[in-house]
Amino acid sequence: MSILVVGSVAYDSVKTSAGSRQDALGGSATYFSVAASFLAPVAVVAVVGDDFRAEHVGLLEARGVDVTGLETRAGRTFRWVGEYDAEDMSSRATLDTQLNVFAGFSPKLDPGHRTSSYLFLANIDPELQMDVLGQFEERPRVVALDTMNFWIDGKRNDLTRVVKEVDILFMDESEVRSFAGEMNLVKAAGAVIGLGPRTVVVKRGEHGVLLFGSDWTFAAPAFPLERVVDPTGAGDSFAGGFMGYLCATGDVSEAGFRRAAVMGSVMGSFAVESFSADRLLALDRDTVVQRLRALAELASFAPIDTDGSFPWRDGPTQ
Amino acid sequence: MSILVVGSVAYDSVKTSAGSRQDALGGSATYFSVAASFLAPVAVVAVVGDDFRAEHVGLLEARGVDVTGLETRAGRTFRWVGEYDAEDMSSRATLDTQLNVFAGFSPKLDPGHRTSSYLFLANIDPELQMDVLGQFEERPRVVALDTMNFWIDGKRNDLTRVVKEVDILFMDESEVRSFAGEMNLVKAAGAVIGLGPRTVVVKRGEHGVLLFGSDWTFAAPAFPLERVVDPTGAGDSFAGGFMGYLCATGDVSEAGFRRAAVMGSVMGSFAVESFSADRLLALDRDTVVQRLRALAELASFAPIDTDGSFPWRDGPTQ
Repeated sequence: MSILVVGSVAYDSVKTSAGSRQDALGGSATYFSVAASFLAPVAVVAVVGDDFRAEHVGLLEARGVDVTGLETRAGRTFRWVGEYDAEDMSSRATLDTQLNVFAGFSPKLDPGHRTSSYLFLANIDPELQMDVLGQFEERPRVVALDTMNFWIDGKRNDLTRVVKEVDILFMDESEVRSFAGEMNLVKAAGAVIGLGPRTVVVKRGEHGVLLFGSDWTFAAPAFPLERVVDPTGAGDSFAGGFMGYLCATGDVSEAGFRRAAVMGSVMGSFAVESFSADRLLALDRDTVVQRLRALAELASFAPIDTDGSFPWRDGPTQ
Repeated sequence: MSILVVGSVAYDSVKTSAGSRQDALGGSATYFSVAASFLAPVAVVAVVGDDFRAEHVGLLEARGVDVTGLETRAGRTFRWVGEYDAEDMSSRATLDTQLNVFAGFSPKLDPGHRTSSYLFLANIDPELQMDVLGQFEERPRVVALDTMNFWIDGKRNDLTRVVKEVDILFMDESEVRSFAGEMNLVKAAGAVIGLGPRTVVVKRGEHGVLLFGSDWTFAAPAFPLERVVDPTGAGDSFAGGFMGYLCATGDVSEAGFRRAAVMGSVMGSFAVESFSADRLLALDRDTVVQRLRALAELASFAPIDTDGSFPWRDGPTQ
C-alpha cells in the first residue's frame, strides 16, 4: 500500500508577521509528501525547473519519498510570492505567481505509480486531475482531491466531472459554499456528497475541520498554537497526515476517517510553526505522539448524563 | 443555588436571509435567562419601558424566571435594529440603537438577589457591572462577565478593573485580541487569565468555542445547522446554558466547565434556529437530550493508538 501525490513543487517567497523567507521549498506535493511520509510510503509526481536545488531533492529522499516521478525541465521552478496580513494570519495577498515550467505540466505516470492504492490529486487544473485518474488501469482504493477557487470559478464543469469520481474532497469553507452555490455549509456539503464523494473535508484554518459523510459529521479542532510562523502548506500537510493515516491503517471506516482527520490536524499544526516544511522535516515520533495526545485532550469531555441525573427544569406552567 | 443575571431586555428588529421580525423580544438578559431556566432557577435584573408588553413578562414567568427585578420606567424599551449579511450570517450591521429607558439603567439589587450564588454580568457598562458586584455582601460562588468592543475601546480601565474580579470572562475572538492587545489567541487568553479570571471563554460563532484555563484548553464545536434563522442572542444563550449547567450541578471543576461549554453550545444552537427566543421557549427535555448526544457524537473519535501499533516511519537516513 502506498500513496501517490500529483501536484506542485515550488519555491515560495513569503512574508508574515513572524519574518520572511525567500525561495523556500514549497508546493502542495512537497507539504503533502513530507507529512504523509511519517506514516506511509509516498511517491511524488511533479515538475521542477533546472534551477531546482539538489539539496531539496535530498530532503525528500531523506524522508523516503519516491522522487522518480519528479520531472526536471529546462526553465525555472514554479514561484509564488505572498504576504500574510500582519493582524490576521488567515488573510493573505498573492504578490506574484510565476508558473514557469509548471505551465507545461502534463503528468505521465510510470507503470509503477499506476498501481498506487491511495491517490491525492493536489490543487492543479481539474483536466489534469481527470487525466491522471484515467491513467490508472485499476482505480485506486481511495482517491482524494484538493482544489481552489480559481478552478471553481474558471473550470467548474471540468472540476465537477472529476469531483464525481473521487472519494474524498478537500475544500475550504468558502470553496465548498462557492462550488455548491449554497451559503449554508451543511447543505453545501450535502450537495457535494450528492455528486459522488463519500466524504467532504471542510478546512477552516485555525478553526479546525468539519468532515461530512452521507450520514455523519465530525468536527476536529485545530491545535491552538502560541506561535504561528507561516500558514503556507497547512492544508496540504493536513491532507498528507489524513491520507498517510488512511494508507498506514487501511481503515476507511467512519471511525478511521475521524482519526485520520485528527492526524491531519496534528500535521497541519506543525506545518505552520515554521517557514517551508522545516518543522515537519524535523519531526520525531515522540513529538507527534505528544501533540496527538494534546489534541485528544483538547477535544475531550465526559458526556453529560442525559439519564436520571440530568438537571432538567420544566417551567411552572408547563 | 440560583443565578442572577443583570443585563438588557430589549425589542429587536432584525433582518436576515431567512426573513425579518419587528420588535421581537430580545436583549442579553432575555436570552440568558430563558436558556438557563431549563437548568437552574434564574432571576433577572433589567429595565424596560412602559411599552413593554405583559405577554413578554408572561413568557419569562412561564419559564419560572424571577422577574421581580425587572423594573418598569416611564418611556420606551431599549430598541435595536440590525441586518445580517445575506451571504455571511457572522457579519451584521447595526442600523439603529435607541437606548431609551436603558440609558438610565442603574441596577439596585433586592436583598433576596444579593445572595445569589451565580452571577452573570451581561454586556453593560463595566462601571455598572462593578457596582452590581459591590452590592453583594458575600461574593457569589461564580461570577461571569460578558462585554463587547464598545466597552473595550471606550472604557478599558473600568473594564479591566471588573475583569480582575470575575471567575469567567466571555468574549468573542476579536474582543479577546483587542482587549489583550495581542493577535495570537493563546497568548491573548493567557494575558487575560493573568489579570484574574480562572477561565476565558472565547466565542467563535459557527466555529464553536475555546475555553482557556490556567493549564488547560478545551475546544467545543458548534452544532452544524442546516438552517440558521437569526444569530441574535447566540452568545447570551450559550452563556445561559453554561451558567445554568454550572449552577445545576455545582461542578466548577475543569471537567464541569467542559461539560458546561457543551451545554452552552447546545443552547446557542437552538437560539439561532428562530427569531427572538421562540425556539428556546419551545424546548423540551427530549429535544435537548437529542442534541446533546448529537454534539457528543460530532466531536468524538477513538484516540489514535500511540503505543505499539502507531504507524510511524522514520526516514531511511535517520
